[in-house]
Amino acid sequence: MQRITVQSTIRKEFVDITEQLRQEVRDAGWQNGVLLLFNPHTTAGLTINEGADPDVRRDILAALTRLVPDDGDYHHAEGNSDAHIKASLTGSSVLVPIQAGRLALGRWQSVFFCEYDGPRTRHVWLQFIADTQ
Amino acid sequence: MQRITVQSTIRKEFVDITEQLRQEVRDAGWQNGVLLLFNPHTTAGLTINEGADPDVRRDILAALTRLVPDDGDYHHAEGNSDAHIKASLTGSSVLVPIQAGRLALGRWQSVFFCEYDGPRTRHVWLQFIADTQ
Amino acid sequence: MQRITVQSTIRKEFVDITEQLRQEVRDAGWQNGVLLLFNPHTTAGLTINEGADPDVRRDILAALTRLVPDDGDYHHAEGNSDAHIKASLTGSSVLVPIQAGRLALGRWQSVFFCEYDGPRTRHVWLQFIADTQ
Repeated sequence: MQRITVQSTIRKEFVDITEQLRQEVRDAGWQNGVLLLFNPHTTAGLTINEGADPDVRRDILAALTRLVPDDGDYHHAEGNSDAHIKASLTGSSVLVPIQAGRLALGRWQSVFFCEYDGPRTRHVWLQFIADTQ
Repeated sequence: MQRITVQSTIRKEFVDITEQLRQEVRDAGWQNGVLLLFNPHTTAGLTINEGADPDVRRDILAALTRLVPDDGDYHHAEGNSDAHIKASLTGSSVLVPIQAGRLALGRWQSVFFCEYDGPRTRHVWLQFIADTQ
Repeated sequence: MQRITVQSTIRKEFVDITEQLRQEVRDAGWQNGVLLLFNPHTTAGLTINEGADPDVRRDILAALTRLVPDDGDYHHAEGNSDAHIKASLTGSSVLVPIQAGRLALGRWQSVFFCEYDGPRTRHVWLQFIADTQ
């Protein structure tokens, strides 16, 4: 299983990892199938959304923060309960089709690493599932 | 990779695509494995939930709208930030097991295309992952 | 397709199923690939989050209940609309990499069955996708 490293620089941010993924797919020579991106952390997530306008990711993160405030009536004593909750709302993995050696994303789609408790050095695990038909 | 077309008729609606998927699985002759449904749009999603009572999908969409109002303090200038946010809450893909040439869903489950910024002509990409064991 | 049984004991709870899954992977002899966990119910979900401190799952469930109250202006007449909504927020499946015959989870990750309308006897379906490269 391969992995990429993501360095976040503030507590909460969406890091666009699409170019890193494109490079990994090229380097690995994966041709046709599905790429599983798995986030092994419990205070971070992965999502696919628009990459062209940075305001989109800003608005998503602002909405998540409004719905799940940094501070609240949380029992978990480490001060990052909001990050765990956001992680379960966005999910622990995304799947991207691979066609002819390239990420098959929609025209406006980018892949984001969702940092909810940074800054930290993070990893995303990559597992390619080849099309065997 | 195959795809189906979904035509939404209003701004926000959940379109039941289960029958379309059943037809695709039959036509393709897929037997055993997993079907990835990938949504290539950034203002729409996919979800699996109850299909029998239309009030269920109505209640889910009403709750999403209450949590993420159509209008808000959004920075993205295209007027559809709420749709991008809802897209990341429901997710960009679902997986459905295929057993003996049929969708293996739970008794009450249907697959819905979640339109958050219609009406539009949309697509869902289908990638079958065959069981090779 | 294999399945495991989960017995919930109250209306809403997150049941840690990681050990059950480890046992299934061992018994099945799955070596390298991806394990799809599919939840066939419409008032329950699956999520991956921290298992060490029970307050984390407590906080996630409390946040979901704050965002989607048990009672509200719901149309679905069975009294469990909140459970359907929570199910679509957490999602119907999770994927876990399998490496050398073991669940490849992050250090702090556990897999939870999310019961939103218990107590009930529930099932999770398991489909292994072998790495064929």
